[in-house]
Amino acid sequence: MQLIDGKKISSDIVAELTESVAKLEGPKPCIAFIRVGEDPASVSYVRQKNRTAEKIGITPLLFEMSESITQDELFAKVDELNADKSVHGILIQSPLPSHLDEQSAFNRIDPNKDVDGFHVQNAGRVVQEDPAGFASCTPAGIIEICQREGISLEGKHVVVIGRSLIVGKTFALLAMQKGPHANATVTVCHSRTKNLPEVVRAGDVVVAAIGRANFVTADMVKEGAVVIDVGINRVEDSSKKSGYRLVGDVDFEAVKEKASRITPVPGGVGPMTVAMLMKNTFKAYDIQSAS
Amino acid sequence: MQLIDGKKISSDIVAELTESVAKLEGPKPCIAFIRVGEDPASVSYVRQKNRTAEKIGITPLLFEMSESITQDELFAKVDELNADKSVHGILIQSPLPSHLDEQSAFNRIDPNKDVDGFHVQNAGRVVQEDPAGFASCTPAGIIEICQREGISLEGKHVVVIGRSLIVGKTFALLAMQKGPHANATVTVCHSRTKNLPEVVRAGDVVVAAIGRANFVTADMVKEGAVVIDVGINRVEDSSKKSGYRLVGDVDFEAVKEKASRITPVPGGVGPMTVAMLMKNTFKAYDIQSAS
Repeated sequence: MQLIDGKKISSDIVAELTESVAKLEGPKPCIAFIRVGEDPASVSYVRQKNRTAEKIGITPLLFEMSESITQDELFAKVDELNADKSVHGILIQSPLPSHLDEQSAFNRIDPNKDVDGFHVQNAGRVVQEDPAGFASCTPAGIIEICQREGISLEGKHVVVIGRSLIVGKTFALLAMQKGPHANATVTVCHSRTKNLPEVVRAGDVVVAAIGRANFVTADMVKEGAVVIDVGINRVEDSSKKSGYRLVGDVDFEAVKEKASRITPVPGGVGPMTVAMLMKNTFKAYDIQSAS
Repeated sequence: MQLIDGKKISSDIVAELTESVAKLEGPKPCIAFIRVGEDPASVSYVRQKNRTAEKIGITPLLFEMSESITQDELFAKVDELNADKSVHGILIQSPLPSHLDEQSAFNRIDPNKDVDGFHVQNAGRVVQEDPAGFASCTPAGIIEICQREGISLEGKHVVVIGRSLIVGKTFALLAMQKGPHANATVTVCHSRTKNLPEVVRAGDVVVAAIGRANFVTADMVKEGAVVIDVGINRVEDSSKKSGYRLVGDVDFEAVKEKASRITPVPGGVGPMTVAMLMKNTFKAYDIQSAS
């Protein structure tokens, strides 16, 4: 078994982007973050994205809005950033407070600045295989891992566990696209699947994104399969100061004995998400500079 | 084996729509067809759609444009129909002459009038499971067949052969949605799939949409599977006056001995497409009348 080091891959991407940005003459790429309220996880995520942008030389702009803003106030901010030619990417940190409609907010963003890939039009562009579209960052990160690690998906049977919009479904669409990065046979299974272990055992590549700790056990995995673990679950652990530890959707210790390649949690897919956000921002800059 | 009579199902839908339209007070639903050039197949398809609309009481408008129109002239016609409140659905007959960009033309249609479901935004709405979206008519017709024939997809393994935008990929997305019409485990396989027969044999439901005559043979089909044949292929047949006959992607005579249910070609999925177009037009009318 060989471990896939997502941290290393994401640092490589950050280093490459840093080099590309350094070469740019004139204004630098710019990403605007909108954070509504003070949800601690959101504060921490945005801080991390902000820091990575700065490191690369992408200008981060942070707009902190009150928990109580109205949909119209949020829209007005998005409209302002859409119109601002110096802003190339816009990210609205999810989740929004429950009185705001999240999908409408994502759809308000100019699709060409939607670097998170949540706009309905970018969902459609992934289906239509339009290279100008933005795929959401976690599934795009898994494709990137496969490409950089020499894991060809061509003709392989990829089994995706979980059909979420942000991960499972979008990754399935990317993996079945035509092109050297994809061309996979793709199965999507989920909580309603009958005989799930049997279905997963058919996978040359297994992507676990179902959100349940240690869900994928060794008996579900074919000998030699590539296992990509997207899960991030907290389980109680009294030996830790925090009282918990993070585990994936895969029973790592057992599955690693059967897998040919496997991503750990943490340090696997997780770090890729921010790196891909920055890659999308650079792409948005490129497209907008050319037009 | 029980045959699935798509002709009967589509007449039922037409009859139901006729009844619903008769009950409407005030203006009737209206669908506009744009046909560019005189491609004989396009002429015939549009004529058939026109006739079905008339039969139901949906007002058909036909715009025949010259083969040599420019993209801007086509856009101007679409814009005019988008702005016309008496028009609820707009269909641009595919294929367009090669100097016109088809996807841009589809994307010019108001997504709420895009009854063919080819607008990028409707592709995205299918991914996002937005009930206000329009799914393209052939895959929506297959879901309709399953519902009306009591074929539950819930937890079943649905194997789709072919990853076209218009059929395979969109059907896969519909079948994996959450909801009583769907909840299937879905596999998409295609020309690049290794061990395709083995993959197809896992299917409780097999949807053949690969565009090759008699591609699916009996050895690929599990005993008792439901087989849906989307293919329409011409094969030479000197016994016919035309010199050819139509066959599906499934080797019907052999596969029908193993399948529990099967659609014939012709008379299976084919007739559903126009019926679903009319259903989409009625839905568009409904949405636009409510707003």
